[in-house]
Amino acid sequence: MSTDTRHSLGIEQRQMGAVVIEGSGPPEKSLAYRSEPVPEPGPGEVLVEVHAAAVNPLDVVNAAGLLGTPLPVIPGGDYAGIVVSGGGHAGQQVWGSGPALGMALGTKRPGTHARFVVLPEAWLSRKPERLTMTQAAAVGRSYFVAWQTVINVMGLTPGETILITGGAGMVGQAATAIARWRGAEPIIADRRRPDGAEHFIDTSSGDIREAVLELTGGRGADLALDTVGGALFQPALRSLRFDGRMTGIFSAPEPQADFPVAEIYNRQLHVTGLASVFMDGADVARIFDQLRPLFDRGLLTPPAVQTWPLENAAKAYQTVLDGSAGIKQVLLPS
Amino acid sequence: MSTDTRHSLGIEQRQMGAVVIEGSGPPEKSLAYRSEPVPEPGPGEVLVEVHAAAVNPLDVVNAAGLLGTPLPVIPGGDYAGIVVSGGGHAGQQVWGSGPALGMALGTKRPGTHARFVVLPEAWLSRKPERLTMTQAAAVGRSYFVAWQTVINVMGLTPGETILITGGAGMVGQAATAIARWRGAEPIIADRRRPDGAEHFIDTSSGDIREAVLELTGGRGADLALDTVGGALFQPALRSLRFDGRMTGIFSAPEPQADFPVAEIYNRQLHVTGLASVFMDGADVARIFDQLRPLFDRGLLTPPAVQTWPLENAAKAYQTVLDGSAGIKQVLLPS
Amino acid sequence: MSTDTRHSLGIEQRQMGAVVIEGSGPPEKSLAYRSEPVPEPGPGEVLVEVHAAAVNPLDVVNAAGLLGTPLPVIPGGDYAGIVVSGGGHAGQQVWGSGPALGMALGTKRPGTHARFVVLPEAWLSRKPERLTMTQAAAVGRSYFVAWQTVINVMGLTPGETILITGGAGMVGQAATAIARWRGAEPIIADRRRPDGAEHFIDTSSGDIREAVLELTGGRGADLALDTVGGALFQPALRSLRFDGRMTGIFSAPEPQADFPVAEIYNRQLHVTGLASVFMDGADVARIFDQLRPLFDRGLLTPPAVQTWPLENAAKAYQTVLDGSAGIKQVLLPS
Amino acid sequence: MSTDTRHSLGIEQRQMGAVVIEGSGPPEKSLAYRSEPVPEPGPGEVLVEVHAAAVNPLDVVNAAGLLGTPLPVIPGGDYAGIVVSGGGHAGQQVWGSGPALGMALGTKRPGTHARFVVLPEAWLSRKPERLTMTQAAAVGRSYFVAWQTVINVMGLTPGETILITGGAGMVGQAATAIARWRGAEPIIADRRRPDGAEHFIDTSSGDIREAVLELTGGRGADLALDTVGGALFQPALRSLRFDGRMTGIFSAPEPQADFPVAEIYNRQLHVTGLASVFMDGADVARIFDQLRPLFDRGLLTPPAVQTWPLENAAKAYQTVLDGSAGIKQVLLPS
Repeated sequence: MSTDTRHSLGIEQRQMGAVVIEGSGPPEKSLAYRSEPVPEPGPGEVLVEVHAAAVNPLDVVNAAGLLGTPLPVIPGGDYAGIVVSGGGHAGQQVWGSGPALGMALGTKRPGTHARFVVLPEAWLSRKPERLTMTQAAAVGRSYFVAWQTVINVMGLTPGETILITGGAGMVGQAATAIARWRGAEPIIADRRRPDGAEHFIDTSSGDIREAVLELTGGRGADLALDTVGGALFQPALRSLRFDGRMTGIFSAPEPQADFPVAEIYNRQLHVTGLASVFMDGADVARIFDQLRPLFDRGLLTPPAVQTWPLENAAKAYQTVLDGSAGIKQVLLPS
Repeated sequence: MSTDTRHSLGIEQRQMGAVVIEGSGPPEKSLAYRSEPVPEPGPGEVLVEVHAAAVNPLDVVNAAGLLGTPLPVIPGGDYAGIVVSGGGHAGQQVWGSGPALGMALGTKRPGTHARFVVLPEAWLSRKPERLTMTQAAAVGRSYFVAWQTVINVMGLTPGETILITGGAGMVGQAATAIARWRGAEPIIADRRRPDGAEHFIDTSSGDIREAVLELTGGRGADLALDTVGGALFQPALRSLRFDGRMTGIFSAPEPQADFPVAEIYNRQLHVTGLASVFMDGADVARIFDQLRPLFDRGLLTPPAVQTWPLENAAKAYQTVLDGSAGIKQVLLPS
Repeated sequence: MSTDTRHSLGIEQRQMGAVVIEGSGPPEKSLAYRSEPVPEPGPGEVLVEVHAAAVNPLDVVNAAGLLGTPLPVIPGGDYAGIVVSGGGHAGQQVWGSGPALGMALGTKRPGTHARFVVLPEAWLSRKPERLTMTQAAAVGRSYFVAWQTVINVMGLTPGETILITGGAGMVGQAATAIARWRGAEPIIADRRRPDGAEHFIDTSSGDIREAVLELTGGRGADLALDTVGGALFQPALRSLRFDGRMTGIFSAPEPQADFPVAEIYNRQLHVTGLASVFMDGADVARIFDQLRPLFDRGLLTPPAVQTWPLENAAKAYQTVLDGSAGIKQVLLPS
Repeated sequence: MSTDTRHSLGIEQRQMGAVVIEGSGPPEKSLAYRSEPVPEPGPGEVLVEVHAAAVNPLDVVNAAGLLGTPLPVIPGGDYAGIVVSGGGHAGQQVWGSGPALGMALGTKRPGTHARFVVLPEAWLSRKPERLTMTQAAAVGRSYFVAWQTVINVMGLTPGETILITGGAGMVGQAATAIARWRGAEPIIADRRRPDGAEHFIDTSSGDIREAVLELTGGRGADLALDTVGGALFQPALRSLRFDGRMTGIFSAPEPQADFPVAEIYNRQLHVTGLASVFMDGADVARIFDQLRPLFDRGLLTPPAVQTWPLENAAKAYQTVLDGSAGIKQVLLPS
């Protein structure tokens, strides 16, 4: 067994650098960077060396203690890396995003904000060759959530218009890129106009419904992706055409929206949500399998990225908390 | 051309008895029974002798002037009868329900509350042999709306539970019967317990959500059909399990429901409406084609019926307006 | 119940009566009834006491050595019984059918033709209360294959006609019953007219296509379920209407059918197969969950049954091999 | 433009140049270019001035008398042009392709190989702004057939492999372009390697199945589009993976394919055809509505084109008959 990967790591390498949520408070207080044991894969699992790992709002929410995760825990769901042990997969470059609850990277299982992470084989997806590790890690949750809602749930077709609330955010940008590739017309509603936005509605000043009606010749949007929740639910709903469809990805419990049920019933609207954190890890991997060829052929391009050494994770978390202006914050273990 | 059906009607029969909406007000004031010219079929149309025609709440709403229909007009959408002229269809026993707007029986076209009605060929569906004309006319709108929502939109499968608000009403009873045939478990929520209801929630006294949770072992209903709108929207929504689906068929514009968007988004609910009045008449006929064998084999049975001579239509309308306690009011031209 | 169920079985009960495929040849030669160790459930598995277990053609094929199963093995896939150990399931009455390959009851795992069988929890489905153990075991493979093809793959709707080749066999009878419940018109093609067949084509004398055209007024069948394969493929295909759909469940490799491709392409037919042995065990259990309420309400009724003591399994297998005339052969462990 | 468009055409312009199928034989003999009356739109129809019209194999088949079209008739289905009369559409640039039978351009209705054509309003689709009239006319039937089969019928997803028999032909090239945009991997099987083909199988020398297995790492293709029929049916079918799906667009009645049914049934293949000539004209227009944004954004590019004055139609037909090597033959009325 002289070639066993585990052996070759050597005794002194059984420890690794990792971000750990130790307590509550702002990132600088709740997060530590410290030495942790390299996790051991069980049956049907592999050990992945993390080369890059993005920070998502969900990680920030987790670090703030809002998911009720038992501490201490290594957070993080998105990643790109190389399988270092685990049957036929060793040496394979992989990318993906772990669901946050259920089996769940960064909550019930140690997450990706560490030098190594253990993953079920069924969660693996080959990394696009055209992307660097950093770029591949930056795709992650934003893109699979955008894909699941825009393509799988709502079935966007070429020529349709899609209103994207919070369109300047990471999920919003991913949805915009996917909609453009698909031949559809994204309409971005946000407080900041992202680069290259063709149709933009400034939510800090404009009336969303009126603006959408004007952009669609009075017809209303075919679809809406609501990445904001709460306050934008009603205006997004009212921007839809008869028989239009809408998906929201998260809403804070408060405030309650006050709206006429008749709007949904009598205009035959289709409203749903995506609770992505309950998605099956293997299903998520199959979405990354579909995203891969689109990035490999340049039909989709990765988002702008700011990188941080893993040791500085708290600063990356704080940047996400402050609003990262559409730039993905990516941690690089060393 | 001595056998032409139109000829055989004779000159004196070119007039027919018909109900006419002449003005606004309660049925007794707004409706008249009078002599009207028999309508003439255009290309692709047939003339149907109406043997029985049900009164629906939509007709009452129409007679009350709430649809803005230009007057005078012959109201009525549901019917059973015999094709008396129109190519290959003559002599055929047919049944069905005209959509109310669009091309639209009883609003833009003369309706079925008359001795004769003209219908596009594509709207025809053969009557079940096992049903009398009166029974066939009583199926009508209640059943196609129940079928469209429960089977086509929500895809009810055997073993699922479905909450039906307003379950004692005509659409609610139709949905209950369809759900039972399908092998599902209907839960009826209403102020009156209909005969044979296995699972009943009294909405005048009970908490719907709590009652549903108790009936489903804490799981929540798989589906909800909301035939009431407004006040029952929120309790119905909150009775659904994670990933549950719900369809409403109509809601008054007021009052607005006050509810947390998070309920839909984070619990991944699927909420939609059916604006049945905009359905295509040919699609409606294809639903009656599916209902036919179910009635012919006794897998579905027609609702209880009270009949009225066509001359007494105003009383039948008033009965529907007062609440018909789950008994279909059917007009019989003579 | 202070002691573990396994304990309560007692040391002398760790052995059980079981059918074992020991070699090749006809059932009388290849099958033995002997004492075998009671299998032990692993993680996520339960131990089920088998109360009744049907014999399927697939078991006979297995006993004949045609599946290449490593011997010795306990055969059998269908069963009804009681969970005797395994967490929250103990005491539950269950029914179902194990897929034959893959994970696979009776090939890679010990089968149900024994007093006990170990099953993954995810494969469990509650038995209908209305059925006896014997009746529940008789539903098994025939019904889930019929359901998967007729409902899930082909989406039979009320009023459609479905040609069922081999309609007098067990799968054919199950498909006929399901089609009737669904409000469709089954046309049975076989060498023997099963009891109660309304539309029957004698395949030993008649021309299938001509007979179907006559029964459907020249239109052709909407669907075909081909349970025979080989020789009936072409006549079944040619009996379909334009845009019709057809599913086959198995065909011997020879002989090859000789047919014009134009029949499929230019008449826009939809032809597929179901390789049920590769279905996921959990998906199969979800089908039994849908069948349960239909049997519990009498919307479906179990097939006629002949029972055998488990010791006489070879005779039951021989009966299936000889053709069981639509009567399910069920083994009863004692 | 104070006068009605019809008026402004003037009396002497009520005649137009048109190609007419006058008899049987090769194009040079069967086709004439002559003066014909400008057709008059009926209710719900518009008059379109044809600026460019492609010649398809279907037109050649029509001119050869193989569709049994009553003569004389103006042939042609594809077109790009400008609406010159018809309500709100006048002045609109449109493109599309008429179905060949049913209502049917070039068979039951005068076709597009003329200076003017009458079309139902519901068949109209706005031309992509980025394409010239000639380019828009060249998209036509090839692209809507490719779209209907690859996207609507088979549901190609990113990363899937699709074998395209006859991949160097016009439909094959359209399918290849659509597959690439979709992020899939087309494998072209033909006698001639088209420019830019990444994966090519020479059908005149190679074994299709072996080549596909090699290109897919032994897995088989996910999908096959068979544009050839007959001889390539069996090898295409055998190139599919388990559970793979295949669509053919036309096959000559002879020769019959000789193949094991077991190939379809036991490998769970999904085989169907598209009889595009029976598609509804409005549904075809909705496909062009989806193609429009893809051409307008450069996600799809139009095929190479050779143009002919309308007077020389016979030569264009002969070129299509001889095999046009992937270059679309387009007629230009003057």
